[in-house]
Amino acid sequence: MTAFRVGLLGHGTVGAAFHELLEQRAPEVEATTGQRPEIAGVLTRSRGDFDEILDGSDLVVELIGGLEPAREYVLRALRAGRHVVTANKALLAQRGEEVFGAAREAGAQLRFEAAVGGVVPAIRVIGETLAAAHVDRVHGIVNGTTNYILTEMTRTGVSYGDALSQAQALGYAEADPTDDVTGRDAAAKMAILARLAFGASVSLEDVSYEGVEHLTESDIAYAEELGLSLKLIGTAERVGDGLSVRVHPAFLFGAHPLASVNGSFNAVTIESPAITEITLSGPGAGGPQTASAVLGDVVSAMIPPPTLPPPPVELPLVSDVESAFYLHLEVADRPGVLAQVAEILGLQGVSIKSVVQKGLGDDARLEMVVHRVLESKFLAAVGLIGRLEFLRARPRVIRVIEETF
Amino acid sequence: MTAFRVGLLGHGTVGAAFHELLEQRAPEVEATTGQRPEIAGVLTRSRGDFDEILDGSDLVVELIGGLEPAREYVLRALRAGRHVVTANKALLAQRGEEVFGAAREAGAQLRFEAAVGGVVPAIRVIGETLAAAHVDRVHGIVNGTTNYILTEMTRTGVSYGDALSQAQALGYAEADPTDDVTGRDAAAKMAILARLAFGASVSLEDVSYEGVEHLTESDIAYAEELGLSLKLIGTAERVGDGLSVRVHPAFLFGAHPLASVNGSFNAVTIESPAITEITLSGPGAGGPQTASAVLGDVVSAMIPPPTLPPPPVELPLVSDVESAFYLHLEVADRPGVLAQVAEILGLQGVSIKSVVQKGLGDDARLEMVVHRVLESKFLAAVGLIGRLEFLRARPRVIRVIEETF
Repeated sequence: MTAFRVGLLGHGTVGAAFHELLEQRAPEVEATTGQRPEIAGVLTRSRGDFDEILDGSDLVVELIGGLEPAREYVLRALRAGRHVVTANKALLAQRGEEVFGAAREAGAQLRFEAAVGGVVPAIRVIGETLAAAHVDRVHGIVNGTTNYILTEMTRTGVSYGDALSQAQALGYAEADPTDDVTGRDAAAKMAILARLAFGASVSLEDVSYEGVEHLTESDIAYAEELGLSLKLIGTAERVGDGLSVRVHPAFLFGAHPLASVNGSFNAVTIESPAITEITLSGPGAGGPQTASAVLGDVVSAMIPPPTLPPPPVELPLVSDVESAFYLHLEVADRPGVLAQVAEILGLQGVSIKSVVQKGLGDDARLEMVVHRVLESKFLAAVGLIGRLEFLRARPRVIRVIEETF
Repeated sequence: MTAFRVGLLGHGTVGAAFHELLEQRAPEVEATTGQRPEIAGVLTRSRGDFDEILDGSDLVVELIGGLEPAREYVLRALRAGRHVVTANKALLAQRGEEVFGAAREAGAQLRFEAAVGGVVPAIRVIGETLAAAHVDRVHGIVNGTTNYILTEMTRTGVSYGDALSQAQALGYAEADPTDDVTGRDAAAKMAILARLAFGASVSLEDVSYEGVEHLTESDIAYAEELGLSLKLIGTAERVGDGLSVRVHPAFLFGAHPLASVNGSFNAVTIESPAITEITLSGPGAGGPQTASAVLGDVVSAMIPPPTLPPPPVELPLVSDVESAFYLHLEVADRPGVLAQVAEILGLQGVSIKSVVQKGLGDDARLEMVVHRVLESKFLAAVGLIGRLEFLRARPRVIRVIEETF
């Protein structure tokens, strides 16, 4: 029997779950790979010596998280020719090229399925199944906390604040939920997915993001009348000769594959001409789920297929992109209101897809969805509409992602 | 530049699409793998020589389909040490062990993502991401033709016959749709998925299947009142110390990840304790989609990770399994009817989850869903109910798959 020695950096929730899972599944791993995996050493803040662990390992699993000292350990392990498996989203989204470059130079494997999308095997499918495909767009629900919050607001009509408190009480949101609710966590994950799908160097600073804190239960309730559901969507897509990577709340039509992804689930849809689209979904990251993704990577590294991303290509980042939009206007109840709104939209080249006129008197409102249009044009039109004297409140605008078909 | 020579067997719809896609994506494949793929030779009924193609190839792509001569070519290629990529569902479902064994003995790779699920990367995710996971159950919508037919029956209320004609007119069903509508095609795919997920030898003859020909538009319409949608579902699951593999129509509750898979789409849900579940979905097989899956396999074989299934383990096949059920009864409109039905169910240990009493007089009916129960027990109860004198028609029974959560 050959042993395959795994050095484990970090022994928190995920580290401990991985340690247990590895020992539990060692016989099956041996049956699959011909080598029996064993933990060669564990490094925590209080115990273990990195150099010793490195010397005694065939592969290093990094579950410390954050930039330092994780970055230093990962680089040193790769430069020593060790394969590395990591769940470190921050490291890959902020120092990705440095780490990818070190792996390429050393000819070592670097695997990171657990960094994005919980159990959803987005990294493997993009990096291997679609290695030679031309990807047009990746859409993702890559943050379970915000998806849980939006699902609860939809399902029970509670406010954002109440849904957040509930998520915290149930352990779906941390005490300080800033990274999740501002969209920053999703932005880091989209940077990693974009790097893989498009081959361009994308880091967290390149991703624009908007969170869910400003969303109201009425946004959701009204839009339901149009058959729309609200999600925090990450998008990475080719736009002309460039690339756009962003995170923002968006409505989905019922038939969109991400529309039915509810609760703390994650999902990723990859669009490419040859395949049309593939959707992957599953629970967001918890300790055991992440540990399972890490183990899958370890097993793959034991059967070596070097699936490193090639050096980055040049692909400029685009900020002004086309989208369909949902527009909600509180208006005075009088003739000619819709006509004036429609005229302004028409002059900016914005075309209405569907519109509903609701309520009477002080409750009158217009809800509409407009066809795909350049964001700058639509916002210019909304700016003009906002100045109309019959408007009773600021226009509310939310992006809409249409069905693929 | 190193060339990687691909011998192509078969040049029908998929073969021609693969040929074109390979030439189109050759630069990207070279960037990813360091080798430039090229077609070394093509074998069709009227041209090409197998021995010559074999001699000049690093890898053989088999897109002839059917058992012979595909089986002979695949075995000869593997025994000559060539990697083989195939989309041949019949070969793998009926002569799988022979072919897997030949690959293992020769140490050659055998990849077959395109044989199951259209573009859905079920083979890779089960065989690699979950290589060391303990899989409990695989559910699949693995036949696009029948999913299209059921979706149309649901959406427009047309009969089975009309939906089938429509599917044929649109090219979603063949002139002879027998393999699709009887469930045989889905059964072959489930045999392959079960082989991979559970490691046990499963061939087409081991899979029980039931098709969609007997389903009526009223089955669908009535069940919609209970929030159920009808799909042709393949199931492979551990039952006690054994395994059950089967294909049959089943209702899904709205929150089940497969409930929203519509039209000619395919999808697979894999359940495992550590990950809860992963769902993969995408369009069913068409020429370009299948070609893309084949190319993904070729690229993976160029970066060798030998992901062969290990020799089979012993796992007996189980035929009597637990399921929830939908039961529809046309009854006389008189007191005590529900009580008698409920008593019979109760005596057999069948527990009612929800029940709706509808209609009056000659139109009176009971629709219900019962909790999970051993199939034999439920069918015994239905046999007794079928003899009740107030029944106006034979009971209608359809399986129900509940949400995972």
